Amino acid sequence: MRICTRRITGPSAWVGADFQPSDWVVTLEPAERDELLQALRGLPADRPPAQVTAADFPLPRLAPKLAELVRELEFGRGFAVLRGVPIDLPPAEQYLLYWGIVAHMGTAVTQNARGELISHVTDYGKGDLSDNAVRIYETSAVVPFHTDSSDITGLLCLRDAREGGASVLASSTTIHNRLLEEHRELLGVYYVGFVYDRRTEEESGEAPYYRNPVYGYFGDVLSCRYYIRHYIESAVRKSRIPLTDMERLALDLFEEIAHTERNQVSMELRPGDLQFVNNNVVVHSRTAFRDSPGHRRDLLRIWFNTPHARKMPEGFARFRFGMPLIAENE
Amino acid sequence: MRICTRRITGPSAWVGADFQPSDWVVTLEPAERDELLQALRGLPADRPPAQVTAADFPLPRLAPKLAELVRELEFGRGFAVLRGVPIDLPPAEQYLLYWGIVAHMGTAVTQNARGELISHVTDYGKGDLSDNAVRIYETSAVVPFHTDSSDITGLLCLRDAREGGASVLASSTTIHNRLLEEHRELLGVYYVGFVYDRRTEEESGEAPYYRNPVYGYFGDVLSCRYYIRHYIESAVRKSRIPLTDMERLALDLFEEIAHTERNQVSMELRPGDLQFVNNNVVVHSRTAFRDSPGHRRDLLRIWFNTPHARKMPEGFARFRFGMPLIAENE
Repeated sequence: MRICTRRITGPSAWVGADFQPSDWVVTLEPAERDELLQALRGLPADRPPAQVTAADFPLPRLAPKLAELVRELEFGRGFAVLRGVPIDLPPAEQYLLYWGIVAHMGTAVTQNARGELISHVTDYGKGDLSDNAVRIYETSAVVPFHTDSSDITGLLCLRDAREGGASVLASSTTIHNRLLEEHRELLGVYYVGFVYDRRTEEESGEAPYYRNPVYGYFGDVLSCRYYIRHYIESAVRKSRIPLTDMERLALDLFEEIAHTERNQVSMELRPGDLQFVNNNVVVHSRTAFRDSPGHRRDLLRIWFNTPHARKMPEGFARFRFGMPLIAENE
Repeated sequence: MRICTRRITGPSAWVGADFQPSDWVVTLEPAERDELLQALRGLPADRPPAQVTAADFPLPRLAPKLAELVRELEFGRGFAVLRGVPIDLPPAEQYLLYWGIVAHMGTAVTQNARGELISHVTDYGKGDLSDNAVRIYETSAVVPFHTDSSDITGLLCLRDAREGGASVLASSTTIHNRLLEEHRELLGVYYVGFVYDRRTEEESGEAPYYRNPVYGYFGDVLSCRYYIRHYIESAVRKSRIPLTDMERLALDLFEEIAHTERNQVSMELRPGDLQFVNNNVVVHSRTAFRDSPGHRRDLLRIWFNTPHARKMPEGFARFRFGMPLIAENE
C-alpha cells in the first residue's frame, strides 16, 4: 500500500482542451448496424439478456472495433461514445442488443441489491435524496462527479432530456497530478478514503455504510474510486463520525479540479449514443435535467469489467464485482 | 483548517540527543521544600484538594520558579522534572501538596467519567485491555507513545517499580518535521485523525467512539493529540469501519520516528520526582513494569491547562477541558 508520488504521463492524464469530439466518437457504419440487427434476429427466442454470450451474438465485422474500444478504455483516454446504436426496437430487444455488444467487451456486474444488470437512468419520480432509499440515478438532479463500482460504465441513450442532462467527464489521473503538484500533503486523505452510506442496500447484519479509498496505486497503476459525495454526508448520520474540515477540503479540491473548464469534456448524448467510461481513470457527472410530459430522459446503464482489467487488492473497489443481492422485505 | 508545510524550528523541535538530564531536572532546594510543607500546614483543616487556590497556598520563593517552568513547558522543550517534592506524608496531604503546586501553574481538568482530578497510575489488578472498561494507565503493560487530553500532564512518583516502568518522551514537533520531509503525502491522514474508543465512558445517547485529529495547525502553532493506539483498534469493533492499510502505515511511521533512539529522552522517575509534559508538543510512553509483593509502582497523575495556553478550535482536542461525568449504573 503506497501513495503514487510521481507525475503520471500518458493518455489517461488528459485535459478536455486536448480533444475534439471526433476524437472520442466512433460512428457505426450502416453495415455494422445491420450486423447488430442480424445478430439480434439470430438469437434463440426468449433468451434472457443475461444468458447471451459473444458466441450467441456473432459480430465478425464489429468485434475487432469493440476490442479496440476496450483497449482504448483500459489503456487510453478511458472514455468513448459509440454512435448510431439501433434503438428503434421493442424494450426486450433493446436489452438484448445492448447485452450482445457488451458480451464482446467484458462481464456485466449487478448494480443494486435487486440484482439489476441493466438499469434505467431516468427520473423515477421517487423524490430526492432526503429519502435514504433513493439513489441519485433515479432522480433528475445534478449528479456530481463520481465513479461507478465496475471497471466500465456503459450508458445507452434512448431518449435525451428536453433540457439539461449534459454528460461531463474529467480525468482522475489529471486530478491526481494536480493534487500531487499543489497539495501533496493532502494525498493520503484520498488513499484512506471516505465512509459511504449503503442507502438501505446493506445485507442483514452488515454495517449500513462502508469505507472506500479514492485512490489506490497498485503495481505502478493508479486507480480511482470516487463515489457520490451525498452518500458520504448521509453516512455521517449512521456512523456518528462527523466529517473533519480536512476531509471536506479534500473533497472540495477534488471537485474544484474536476470542474475546471479546461480539464473537462462535456457532451450531450443523443438517442443511439452509447457512452463508455472507465471508472478507474475517469470521473463522470451530469447536469440537472427537465423532462416534458410524455418525453422522459432515459438511459440504459450497464456496469461491466473487462477481461484484462487491472488488478486491485480486495477491498479497494468494494463492489467492483457487483452489489450483493439482499432479500426483499416481505 | 490547514496543514503545516514548513519545517518548525525552535525549542519544541528537539531530539533527545540534544540533552543532558541536568537540562530538564529542576531540583527543589531545602528552603523550597520547607516552603511547600509550610504552605501545606497553613491550609484550613479538611479543605478538599480541588478547592485549594494559589492564594491559599502561598509560595513566595517557589512561585517564580513554577511560573518559569510553565513558560518552559508552553514555549520551550515542553517537559521538565521537579525533583525532591515532599511525599513522605499521609495520602490526603500528598494530594493537597500536589494540588497546591499545580494551583500555581494552571487549572486541573477531570481525567475520567468518575470525575477524578488526581488519579493513581498503578496496576489496579483489573486485568488487561481485553476488558473494554479497563484503561491502560490501570495496568502494568507497556503504554505506547501518546498524549493525554489536557495541555499538561503531571506525574508525581510516589513509588517506582521494582523493574521497568521507564518514562520515554519524544517531540511531536520533531516527528512532524520528519514526516514533512520524508512522507509529506501522508500528512493529511494525521490531520483527519483517527476514531477512538470511549472505553465505556460515553454519556448516554453518545456514540461509544469519537474522532480526533493527530495534528492541528492553528495561528501558525502546531499542536498534537496522539491518543492510545489500542483505543483506535478497539473502536473498529464498535464503529464497524476497518482501519485502512494507509492508516496503519501512518500510525507505524509516527511511532517509528518516536522510537528512534536519537529522538527520545528516557528517564527513570524516582520517588519525589514530579514530571511535567506538554501534550501539545511532546508524546510520552512508558515501558512495562513489574511490582514485587508489598511494593507497588504508584504515580499520582494530574491533568491541567495553563492560563496562557494556545488557542485551538473546538473539537481539535475533544477532552481538553476535562472528561464529562456520567452517572454510574445503579
